[in-house]
Amino acid sequence: MSPRFFSERNLRFLLYEVFDAVSLTHYDEYKEYDGKTLDMVLKAAMELAEGLLWPIFQEMDKNPPEWVEDRIKVHPSVRKFMEESGEGGWIGIDFPFEWGGQQLPRMITLACRFIFCAANYSAAVYPDLTAGAARLILTFGKEEMKKTYLPKMLSGKWQGTMALTEAEAGSSLSDITTEAEPTDQGYYKVRGQKIFISAGDHDAVDNVVHLMLAKIKGAPSGVKGISLFVVPKKRMDEKGQLVPNDVVTSGMFHKLGYRGCPIAQLSIGDNDDCRGYLVGEPHQGLFQMFQMMNEARIGVGAGATAIATAAYYAALDYSKKRLQGRRLSTKDPTLPQVPIIEHPDVKRMLLFQRSVVEGSLALLIQCVKYADLAGVLTGEEKEKNELLLDLLTPVAKTYPSEMGLLSISAGLQCLGGSGYCDDYPLEQYYRDARIHPIHEGTTGIHGLDLLNRKVMMNHGKAYRLFLEEMEGTIRHAEKFEELQSYAKKLKSSLEMLEKVTAHLIEVRKKGDPELFLADATLYLEFFGIVCMAWQWLLQATAVVKALVNRTNSAEANFYNGKFFAFRYFFEYELPKMEGLARRLMNSDGLTVELKPNLFYD
Amino acid sequence: MSPRFFSERNLRFLLYEVFDAVSLTHYDEYKEYDGKTLDMVLKAAMELAEGLLWPIFQEMDKNPPEWVEDRIKVHPSVRKFMEESGEGGWIGIDFPFEWGGQQLPRMITLACRFIFCAANYSAAVYPDLTAGAARLILTFGKEEMKKTYLPKMLSGKWQGTMALTEAEAGSSLSDITTEAEPTDQGYYKVRGQKIFISAGDHDAVDNVVHLMLAKIKGAPSGVKGISLFVVPKKRMDEKGQLVPNDVVTSGMFHKLGYRGCPIAQLSIGDNDDCRGYLVGEPHQGLFQMFQMMNEARIGVGAGATAIATAAYYAALDYSKKRLQGRRLSTKDPTLPQVPIIEHPDVKRMLLFQRSVVEGSLALLIQCVKYADLAGVLTGEEKEKNELLLDLLTPVAKTYPSEMGLLSISAGLQCLGGSGYCDDYPLEQYYRDARIHPIHEGTTGIHGLDLLNRKVMMNHGKAYRLFLEEMEGTIRHAEKFEELQSYAKKLKSSLEMLEKVTAHLIEVRKKGDPELFLADATLYLEFFGIVCMAWQWLLQATAVVKALVNRTNSAEANFYNGKFFAFRYFFEYELPKMEGLARRLMNSDGLTVELKPNLFYD
Repeated sequence: MSPRFFSERNLRFLLYEVFDAVSLTHYDEYKEYDGKTLDMVLKAAMELAEGLLWPIFQEMDKNPPEWVEDRIKVHPSVRKFMEESGEGGWIGIDFPFEWGGQQLPRMITLACRFIFCAANYSAAVYPDLTAGAARLILTFGKEEMKKTYLPKMLSGKWQGTMALTEAEAGSSLSDITTEAEPTDQGYYKVRGQKIFISAGDHDAVDNVVHLMLAKIKGAPSGVKGISLFVVPKKRMDEKGQLVPNDVVTSGMFHKLGYRGCPIAQLSIGDNDDCRGYLVGEPHQGLFQMFQMMNEARIGVGAGATAIATAAYYAALDYSKKRLQGRRLSTKDPTLPQVPIIEHPDVKRMLLFQRSVVEGSLALLIQCVKYADLAGVLTGEEKEKNELLLDLLTPVAKTYPSEMGLLSISAGLQCLGGSGYCDDYPLEQYYRDARIHPIHEGTTGIHGLDLLNRKVMMNHGKAYRLFLEEMEGTIRHAEKFEELQSYAKKLKSSLEMLEKVTAHLIEVRKKGDPELFLADATLYLEFFGIVCMAWQWLLQATAVVKALVNRTNSAEANFYNGKFFAFRYFFEYELPKMEGLARRLMNSDGLTVELKPNLFYD
Repeated sequence: MSPRFFSERNLRFLLYEVFDAVSLTHYDEYKEYDGKTLDMVLKAAMELAEGLLWPIFQEMDKNPPEWVEDRIKVHPSVRKFMEESGEGGWIGIDFPFEWGGQQLPRMITLACRFIFCAANYSAAVYPDLTAGAARLILTFGKEEMKKTYLPKMLSGKWQGTMALTEAEAGSSLSDITTEAEPTDQGYYKVRGQKIFISAGDHDAVDNVVHLMLAKIKGAPSGVKGISLFVVPKKRMDEKGQLVPNDVVTSGMFHKLGYRGCPIAQLSIGDNDDCRGYLVGEPHQGLFQMFQMMNEARIGVGAGATAIATAAYYAALDYSKKRLQGRRLSTKDPTLPQVPIIEHPDVKRMLLFQRSVVEGSLALLIQCVKYADLAGVLTGEEKEKNELLLDLLTPVAKTYPSEMGLLSISAGLQCLGGSGYCDDYPLEQYYRDARIHPIHEGTTGIHGLDLLNRKVMMNHGKAYRLFLEEMEGTIRHAEKFEELQSYAKKLKSSLEMLEKVTAHLIEVRKKGDPELFLADATLYLEFFGIVCMAWQWLLQATAVVKALVNRTNSAEANFYNGKFFAFRYFFEYELPKMEGLARRLMNSDGLTVELKPNLFYD
């Protein structure tokens, strides 16, 4: 049997039974597909993940990239995976046919990437980043730029990156100092330094294409002066040969995990010979980059969910096999030991993991369904889906990232001492996943994004649409007797959310943004729990429908198990809102008032 | 300035201002000491930690032990530290003068070990384990055994270990299969395998002395048949020469962290030539070992607190220096960036860490104060202190272990991307600390210990004494106006604890131990929060007293900062009890009812 790092059954349940992915094939955009062809795509992704990615999961961690002179050597299988990602159409999976893409819905794209990330997160990042960078060129680049870069990138020959961060500009992008000086040759001369660039340089591709933020000389200060450039590691000379473009790898970071993918420091234009090509219009860089970042944030949520999913299955596998102790009700030492999955506390830890990973995956598919619909609908319906996606992006990035860590930690705990040792993959998952609350905006940044921007935007329109979505789910669930008590609980949670949000809006009116936003991170956590409960009720509704007249016992086990995970979430996780609400209703300004010098002792 | 891995000021505050360590010197046992000499001991510990342990903290992680043929090579400084631990009297710090010990109160012992662990946890473990093993020999061994082993162990020439775990017997010690066959030579022949033995073999000492659990041939099954043996790696032959004792290192585990200390697998008696020496009486092994384990559990709590403390100071240091972003109230990008410690969310994360580490340290000192008093008092007072120590041991082990992980994770988060890289120590703390919820009994085991044994023992006497202790703290705090609202909150929390405990006792009466204990881990978490609130109110009372007429501003900053951490705990952490209470009051048996096959999908 193949190693289990995710559940095909659960993925199909979410895609087809909960979110009806096939319905998208009725739109012109996706008319080339039907349920059968979507399935074939998923199957192909699984084969690639099992055949190529999973076998080198631990190997890539134990043999991390090496920085030798000015280049970074990565695991040899990365080249193979980039080639297969190109040839198999995985990089261009949701790109239009005209550029050689597969033009698949994002629901399917996300599912495939989830599979790759579950098998081997570090490896999966290379094509993902390339696709994100290519999409920026597709959306904002001129025709010539598209022709130069897209075929090379979508075929996996060239790596794409997002080059934002600088030593003094991490969360505060307005402070970047990389400079672009216009020339009359159609390019800019770029000078600066970038750090923490994922896949920022390596030897598994022939070139690296940085989508780089820089400021055009004399640009306005702050975010309004940021422009987006394509800055390749090698550029084409007049003869069409690749020549160095004065982008030098000046360092590589040694990381806790996620070690299969190098994180580079780049020196740009040290010899005054780095050419950058403006993407779109000047000073639109941050706006443009946000398109990539929003996709990337969903991608981070998916990556976090994928790692936690793989960790869950590793813990489950161990818990079924490991014999230890006896039932609390029968402590007779002459009886044989039982598998630890018989112990209620182990079941509790497994249910916690299942509730986190399956709830997170549901929320992510929900989000990309909004993206898909926004792409095919028009007018008010389009706007509605866009707003919902916008509102939920910080949640879909953060809940899986933060709770994924706790979920993996619970998985490691199931293995006891073995979980702490590298004979099992848990310790690697624990390290790999810790990046997710940091990259693509820290949890703190997303708290601000949710409360300060998303909930408030368009006079709270997105927020109200979200409440309506949840109310719809509640109304539907109320029709089923088994779900009525849970529907009621979600209703109370909704009321709690409304009360807390209304309170915070009142605080906002007082005019002190620090007081208003002091606990934005906790608001995000609070909001995340409601979202999960909503997604679990949605899943439970599909379960109840499916269980009618279900006779196949393996199938019944799937649905019944799912229902336990749903109950677990409502009985164990949902109550956490209460303590958070208590805190959020008390805007005493504790952390605003506290002077930093009181941290000196 | 020396690197900051703990706060001397806070340690002195707890030892002297909150728990009045000097009062112990009024008892005969400690009459050789006074405040000044206790202070000298602390100073000496700090010097050793700063001079020897801290400089090799990262080096020991990057150069972990190597298993070469049948022995394990460790960092060369380990020998030096073991020697200094012997010469400086650190191993025998709380041993009686007659055995060359220092006969210091455990409050001071704990403080010193906390300092060593904060500087370098992996290194600190070697002498700690030796002391624990030596104490078992001191307490239960015959005179000759004491004479053979104690001088060598207390001088740091021989390593001590606790050799309990086997491949099929981790949490379930009753299942050990290591066997001891009596001979007529005064020793037993021992045969078996042990795994996960910390410092189980290494080349920094001349011998390793295992305090090993084994079953005498024909012993009763289960825990009643377990005996305790001294099994040295090398035994003395007739001429007093050390010769091999057929204990072979058959493996070494590669761990997530805590890498400076090897974890060995041992093959015992493969050549039928391993001699073990019974400690005390047959079949008393588990009872005897629990003496060591109880001490070790407090030690784990202290180690967890120490690592989280070092992580807190690393995060604090970074947060003061790192400039990023601007105040939310003044987003003008032309203004200079501010230190991130100005941001409320960073202050919140720092306060979280401070509240966890300073609260945990208080609880640990409280526990060892009970131990000290139990050692010098008699009759009912002695029993009271023993019971309180017993009751609180699972909490003092688990709260720092579990919350320490979250605290370190918050510290890592303060550093953003830099926290994920090994240029800073946070990633190592994150790895090192993950062992603590596992070793010396997993969190799940301690949940059972607290609810099933400790709360119930002596008809709930320890539990009632604990309530009285808290009530005493509340009554005292009520006298200070600044503390009245907090005293009231702790009172409500106490009532919540009583309500939940009463509910669980009712469930217990129904006779199904699985139902009663299903959420024991959550009960432990719940109980831990009350304990912390109690310890914070105790600290706050000392703060309020100290602030009267305090003029020195650095001192006032310490106390005022402490008061903020106290407020933080009550406003942000204490409310978490509510969600837990909601769950604990609902004994629906979800995890009992769930059949393992529903985890198949």
